[in-house]
Amino acid sequence: MAQINPNFANLQGSYLFAEIRKRVTAFADAHPDASLIRLGIGDVTKPLPPAVISALHAAVDEMGEPDTFRGYPPETGYDFLREAIVQHDFAPRGVPLSPDEVFISDGAKSDTANFQELFAPECVVALTDPVYPVYVDSNVMAGRSGAMNEATGRYARYVYLPCTAENGFTPALPDRRVNLIYLCYPNNPTGSVLPHTELAKWVAYAREHQAVILYDAAYEAYIREPDIPHSIYEIEGARECAVEFRSFSKTAGFTGTRCAYTVVPKEAMGRNAAGESVPLHPLWFRRVSTKFNGVSYIIQRGAAATYTEAGRAQVRELVDGYMENARIIREGLKATGLEVYGGKNAPYIWVKTPDGLGSWGFFDRLLNDAHVVGTPGSGFGPSGEGYLRLTAFGNREQTEEAVSRIRARMAR
Amino acid sequence: MAQINPNFANLQGSYLFAEIRKRVTAFADAHPDASLIRLGIGDVTKPLPPAVISALHAAVDEMGEPDTFRGYPPETGYDFLREAIVQHDFAPRGVPLSPDEVFISDGAKSDTANFQELFAPECVVALTDPVYPVYVDSNVMAGRSGAMNEATGRYARYVYLPCTAENGFTPALPDRRVNLIYLCYPNNPTGSVLPHTELAKWVAYAREHQAVILYDAAYEAYIREPDIPHSIYEIEGARECAVEFRSFSKTAGFTGTRCAYTVVPKEAMGRNAAGESVPLHPLWFRRVSTKFNGVSYIIQRGAAATYTEAGRAQVRELVDGYMENARIIREGLKATGLEVYGGKNAPYIWVKTPDGLGSWGFFDRLLNDAHVVGTPGSGFGPSGEGYLRLTAFGNREQTEEAVSRIRARMAR
Repeated sequence: MAQINPNFANLQGSYLFAEIRKRVTAFADAHPDASLIRLGIGDVTKPLPPAVISALHAAVDEMGEPDTFRGYPPETGYDFLREAIVQHDFAPRGVPLSPDEVFISDGAKSDTANFQELFAPECVVALTDPVYPVYVDSNVMAGRSGAMNEATGRYARYVYLPCTAENGFTPALPDRRVNLIYLCYPNNPTGSVLPHTELAKWVAYAREHQAVILYDAAYEAYIREPDIPHSIYEIEGARECAVEFRSFSKTAGFTGTRCAYTVVPKEAMGRNAAGESVPLHPLWFRRVSTKFNGVSYIIQRGAAATYTEAGRAQVRELVDGYMENARIIREGLKATGLEVYGGKNAPYIWVKTPDGLGSWGFFDRLLNDAHVVGTPGSGFGPSGEGYLRLTAFGNREQTEEAVSRIRARMAR
Repeated sequence: MAQINPNFANLQGSYLFAEIRKRVTAFADAHPDASLIRLGIGDVTKPLPPAVISALHAAVDEMGEPDTFRGYPPETGYDFLREAIVQHDFAPRGVPLSPDEVFISDGAKSDTANFQELFAPECVVALTDPVYPVYVDSNVMAGRSGAMNEATGRYARYVYLPCTAENGFTPALPDRRVNLIYLCYPNNPTGSVLPHTELAKWVAYAREHQAVILYDAAYEAYIREPDIPHSIYEIEGARECAVEFRSFSKTAGFTGTRCAYTVVPKEAMGRNAAGESVPLHPLWFRRVSTKFNGVSYIIQRGAAATYTEAGRAQVRELVDGYMENARIIREGLKATGLEVYGGKNAPYIWVKTPDGLGSWGFFDRLLNDAHVVGTPGSGFGPSGEGYLRLTAFGNREQTEEAVSRIRARMAR
């Protein structure tokens, strides 16, 4: 018989967005005249920059002519895009990379979910709590989680790194040996960042214990303050122990266009069963070339246009617009007396629930009193309980309206 | 330490295309004036149909305007594309499907490589020999192969189904129990097809032994003869035991544009350890929504345009053009006395090597005498030894020239 992967039985139902939808639908049915403002989902709303649109049109035209038509792309991406990434995203920060250390993909979700395939099922995984659920579930499927403890909401074999207001959303080093460490900075969902000194502790830990850091920097473009590393490779020694995931989704509005990339330095190492170093670069190359056929030529041309002079200015404007939304939410909510985190170097605002409300209780209050939809923090892990996530990806008018409603109807 | 996946050590070097490149480069260096014709790689050369180009441009424009911009696509694809697929690819052949049984993806390579994740590592895999290498390597990575036997060129745990001229390239049912069966028809690399009666035997086998058939129908559009099933669901009972992979790559010239789909009927079942039925549809849905963020809106609009009236006519013309190349190669080579298979319902022509030459020997003779590049059959598995693959994806003039050179210089 075709026996199914037994690890799938360890997956938990993904009720979060279904439950949100259910409650929102019930509210809308009961209040047909209410105008809801959705600040829950981390999806962009502004159109693609004009430079990207032009490049996409030009590439479409190329695909329609015999002389410029392109067949299979290189599985790891076109050089024109890999070179632009190296030149614009890393060189200016003093990080020298070779273009063939950059792997172009259809999304950071795919890459952060797939990269664990390079490692043995025995590896112990460390995750911040709260966390982006993809890291959790992809490792469940691969057999690294153990069973869910329903009482704690935690998997038996994962090492959780709580991030709450009490520790300034800064995870402490694990108290037992871990092998794979997922870090996402600027952080989804808390909007926090790791300064250079904190990130350096993780690189030192990984080097000492021969662990690998899976560093998700999808929100890098939102960093505003100095002294916050944009890439983990700004930390000395990170090339030997870290891979980094980046995306055009939130930077250039590519959530519906699909392009991202992963950096695997030639020096990054795993270990074989005998403890000998094994470079990750050829393993990832083999995985990508076996299971993937590359990203559409058209889309790669669109992504490359974000690095032209016009493209860079337009992307900056896009990100600045969302960060202005973040400021409006952060300051507006603070003025009502709410405890508010994030939103300074990230498009996420992490709100402490007031009056001892749980995440869902605050979600309901926002929905009923202000007609604003957030995301309950408990959906991102047990340490997210008592928080709620708002995003800066709405349009300006709706964001201002949401804040003014919260101020008018929820101030105490 | 971050221990690497030990299964990767079982992968064999992928020397085939590297070795071809090496020999071609050496020849070109020695004969700088020779004009090489490449009929080796299975990549299309004709531009995208005009209906697709128009739809891509229109979708790009939508992404540039606030009111029509699209964020994250549904992970499993837009309804407009899933509905067109059901209506045009299946309904006319008497196969009723629900749109939500169709999962849109970036490529059949990704899907045929990833689908095995739903199954336990213990499953026994059956593969035709010769075979598309992705099925082999993706199961090696998942730990289903056992070690390579260097003497036979075969993995210890795979069940190989030889397909040679002796059995008319029709695989016999396995002589021991298998759980996962990869079938690709029309076949890459042999260009053979399975008639209804033969495919029905496999469906009966799978149902009797609770196996699952992974049916790769990427070349379905090339079928010309009647009585050849275009979909495995034309066989009664296949909905309970088969998934089917389709692609826009070879149909509409999408190798560089990237869109494909996988059909998972609601009745298709695996088994849990207790032997109870477990539907594959929710498992694949969970896998896709956890590890993938969907295909670009722009690209899905381009794919959907292949189902408009103009698009259908243009795709037919594209495929007819390649099939005319296939006829030219098949008939031209036959006229030289070569034994030739395939090319009637598939874009691949599978040539028996003459004079007792091995695959590489014939490759060298074609290269040296006719300046034509093929692909040695041995690169697709041990039973491909003694054959060479030519493809119909070149342009007409070059295909005619290649055949005329082979006739002039290699006739005996």
